[in-house]
Amino acid sequence: MKHTNENVSHLLGLEYLTRLQIEQIIDQARPMKQLFTRTVKKVPLLRGRSVALVFFEPSTRTRTSFELAAKRLSADTLSVAASTSSVQKGESLIDTAKTLEAMKTDFIVLRHAASGAPHLIAREVKCHVVNAGDGQHEHPTQGLLDTFTILEKKKRIEGLKVAILGDVAHSRVARSNLWALSKLGAHVAVCGPETLLPKGLPEIFGPNVTVTSKIDEAIKDADVINVLRIQLERQKENLMPSVREYAEIFGLNSQRLATAKRDCIVLHPGPMNRGVEITSEVADSHQSVILEQVTNGIAVRMSVLYWLTGSPMMTVQKAKTLPSESEQLL
Amino acid sequence: MKHTNENVSHLLGLEYLTRLQIEQIIDQARPMKQLFTRTVKKVPLLRGRSVALVFFEPSTRTRTSFELAAKRLSADTLSVAASTSSVQKGESLIDTAKTLEAMKTDFIVLRHAASGAPHLIAREVKCHVVNAGDGQHEHPTQGLLDTFTILEKKKRIEGLKVAILGDVAHSRVARSNLWALSKLGAHVAVCGPETLLPKGLPEIFGPNVTVTSKIDEAIKDADVINVLRIQLERQKENLMPSVREYAEIFGLNSQRLATAKRDCIVLHPGPMNRGVEITSEVADSHQSVILEQVTNGIAVRMSVLYWLTGSPMMTVQKAKTLPSESEQLL
Amino acid sequence: MKHTNENVSHLLGLEYLTRLQIEQIIDQARPMKQLFTRTVKKVPLLRGRSVALVFFEPSTRTRTSFELAAKRLSADTLSVAASTSSVQKGESLIDTAKTLEAMKTDFIVLRHAASGAPHLIAREVKCHVVNAGDGQHEHPTQGLLDTFTILEKKKRIEGLKVAILGDVAHSRVARSNLWALSKLGAHVAVCGPETLLPKGLPEIFGPNVTVTSKIDEAIKDADVINVLRIQLERQKENLMPSVREYAEIFGLNSQRLATAKRDCIVLHPGPMNRGVEITSEVADSHQSVILEQVTNGIAVRMSVLYWLTGSPMMTVQKAKTLPSESEQLL
Repeated sequence: MKHTNENVSHLLGLEYLTRLQIEQIIDQARPMKQLFTRTVKKVPLLRGRSVALVFFEPSTRTRTSFELAAKRLSADTLSVAASTSSVQKGESLIDTAKTLEAMKTDFIVLRHAASGAPHLIAREVKCHVVNAGDGQHEHPTQGLLDTFTILEKKKRIEGLKVAILGDVAHSRVARSNLWALSKLGAHVAVCGPETLLPKGLPEIFGPNVTVTSKIDEAIKDADVINVLRIQLERQKENLMPSVREYAEIFGLNSQRLATAKRDCIVLHPGPMNRGVEITSEVADSHQSVILEQVTNGIAVRMSVLYWLTGSPMMTVQKAKTLPSESEQLL
Repeated sequence: MKHTNENVSHLLGLEYLTRLQIEQIIDQARPMKQLFTRTVKKVPLLRGRSVALVFFEPSTRTRTSFELAAKRLSADTLSVAASTSSVQKGESLIDTAKTLEAMKTDFIVLRHAASGAPHLIAREVKCHVVNAGDGQHEHPTQGLLDTFTILEKKKRIEGLKVAILGDVAHSRVARSNLWALSKLGAHVAVCGPETLLPKGLPEIFGPNVTVTSKIDEAIKDADVINVLRIQLERQKENLMPSVREYAEIFGLNSQRLATAKRDCIVLHPGPMNRGVEITSEVADSHQSVILEQVTNGIAVRMSVLYWLTGSPMMTVQKAKTLPSESEQLL
Repeated sequence: MKHTNENVSHLLGLEYLTRLQIEQIIDQARPMKQLFTRTVKKVPLLRGRSVALVFFEPSTRTRTSFELAAKRLSADTLSVAASTSSVQKGESLIDTAKTLEAMKTDFIVLRHAASGAPHLIAREVKCHVVNAGDGQHEHPTQGLLDTFTILEKKKRIEGLKVAILGDVAHSRVARSNLWALSKLGAHVAVCGPETLLPKGLPEIFGPNVTVTSKIDEAIKDADVINVLRIQLERQKENLMPSVREYAEIFGLNSQRLATAKRDCIVLHPGPMNRGVEITSEVADSHQSVILEQVTNGIAVRMSVLYWLTGSPMMTVQKAKTLPSESEQLL
């Protein structure tokens, strides 16, 4: 299979990937996921390389997912948390990145509150830079894992109706989903309170993306509903009604879900505010694929790390014989 | 050897284990401990599996011990500390556990301030759950390592007189010791200030367990004294006299130790308040096995992790040829 | 090659090493560094051993460097940060060290605010103790990596003129550099504000070490300038002029650098206060070897850990065939 990562050595956002590249990364996630059914969930594909996890915002979920992804590829990991780092001593982001490069770290996985932070360091270092969420810009591995999960369940993206509910204006998860889904041909209906809706989406993403503050319209006949996590601090900014009002008007509950297609699936990037943007009844229903997303997140991140090295791609057939470290028992 | 872990996939407390199961886990700890005498202190028994260390209370000692145990079995470890976790974002314990399960983590080692927390998640997930201390309930690996240490020194538990000194009412260490020691046939004398003594012990553990606030009575002719760590915050609750008074009335010093059997051994789970519950003279004496407990803690935890997988048990003979990763030098 | 580590099982300071020992550790760092040019940057020299990183002062840079050094030797690492450790529970440093020894940890890498802390525990435990910076005393691996970097660039130390600029009185980096450089025969000019200059240096290090508060004198014809990091808190102690004044009088800028030898190299232990003790123009110039120091830091620390085990030394020739773990790809 032709490798699609020519000239791409960083994953900064799905905006910069072609449809073919997105599809190849997702294809590669399948054999990675098969690995998890084994006792020895580990392959030596990145043995002897190191992955620095540089998190300036706390996020156990994403950090843990990348850490397990790296370890299952046999890479070494290195945690650099902002609170304990030289940043406290006033070191610039670029100096931190250049230090990691000088340490011959192969990957820098960066979570940062500033949109564009990973782009900044990608220009300065030779390591592979992976955006693990930058401000309100992108969270590309989340977009990839959501798309992978939808593809697994629906076998296609083209022509699906996907509703994205919540604080879309400030959501990097929404933005990465919009790039992936629109490139792969889905119809996306974006929905939330007027104050939390972004401007100019159709101009950016084309006519397949629509924006509405009417939840019934967004959900009607949807194949997929992706519920965003509500940041409760938006209330203080007067951008959001009370939690109770939000839950009533924009929360996903069983009644609302019933108006979507019968086999509609529900996604959420986690962690959930149960009873706010989603009810427990929906979150724990058979239509929810929220835990599947977590599993797929590790597989997609393994695929991304491996893809960025430009190593030969695996076909799904080949992957069935993916070499595992032999399990040695007495 | 018949494997005793049928239907047991979690270690929640020693209350739930049979005498045979306790003995088998301790037997398995012996070859694990032999491993530590080698340069390459590592076996590939759990290669490719991952152990999540989920600590909602800080505890370097126990966390480190489990981490080394996992690594010496070649498992990958994942630290999830409460302060940095999604818990901050309001995620429930069950959602945290289900997320780790979806990540295909094989073990969840949980330390939590709430008694019963590990039971709660054990009902919800397929991972092996190991209680690393839950509230005032149990700390089963501490109970096992204390019992292992006593067995190593005394060659038996049956018929020994064991004194447990301190804040027994609030101590999970005491409770796990009581379960193990009473199941294995020791006589246990529990001793502390009236306000820190539990009610109803003989009803639970049978006639071999006695309760007294007279330290001379508890220590007299003891084969083993297990000194609990005093939580200095108990003073604020008016449950404890001043530190000086406590040390005078209930602290273990050389004079008191001299009234026990001549070959009496002294245990302490650490970290010690030297000069409070135990004098340095006793802590550093040849009767102290406190550092041996630390070594045994890793061996017992390796044994627990391995035992829970239901893999074939090793005899001590076989263990002598336990396969190590070959040591490669130039 | 004869091994020089007889009777040395700790690295407490460069004061205690002979010239030959310093040279042998640096020689061994070369093949370690060659390893970084490979895809698989890992050798199994310390497989199955464990390295405890015990940091009582935060330092991402040094901690990370030791962590990568250990991992590239295939050792397991264990992070014990003061903020989460039993130290909070009032445990003494010696009890912490003895606990790690009882856990059969092979190395304790200690960063501590008290000068002499590593010496204290080295007397008590059998593990190899490595000083990762103790108060204002020594930071021996920094001294070694600086010397390694100078040797790489200048091919010799003997007869070089080295200027050390900054708060020399309080600097463990300066002290370790002084020991290494004076033992290897360099002329060292130490320079800073009067209040930040140590007393009695020539008495300790001999006539090759001179002290001055005149920066032009220190820099003139220098082969090497090592710029120390300024601790901004010294201002509060009235030991330092304002930041602006410091930068003007003692900061290294291009004009000043031009008075040194044309091929003078510039070192800085990092993280830099750009615009204070060093200008960005100098820090990012072709004369700066600051990032090379970071790379060399890992190689030197690998060499130190390996050297302390007393294992056979590698010649540079042999090192070319240093066994790597074979890189397995599909």
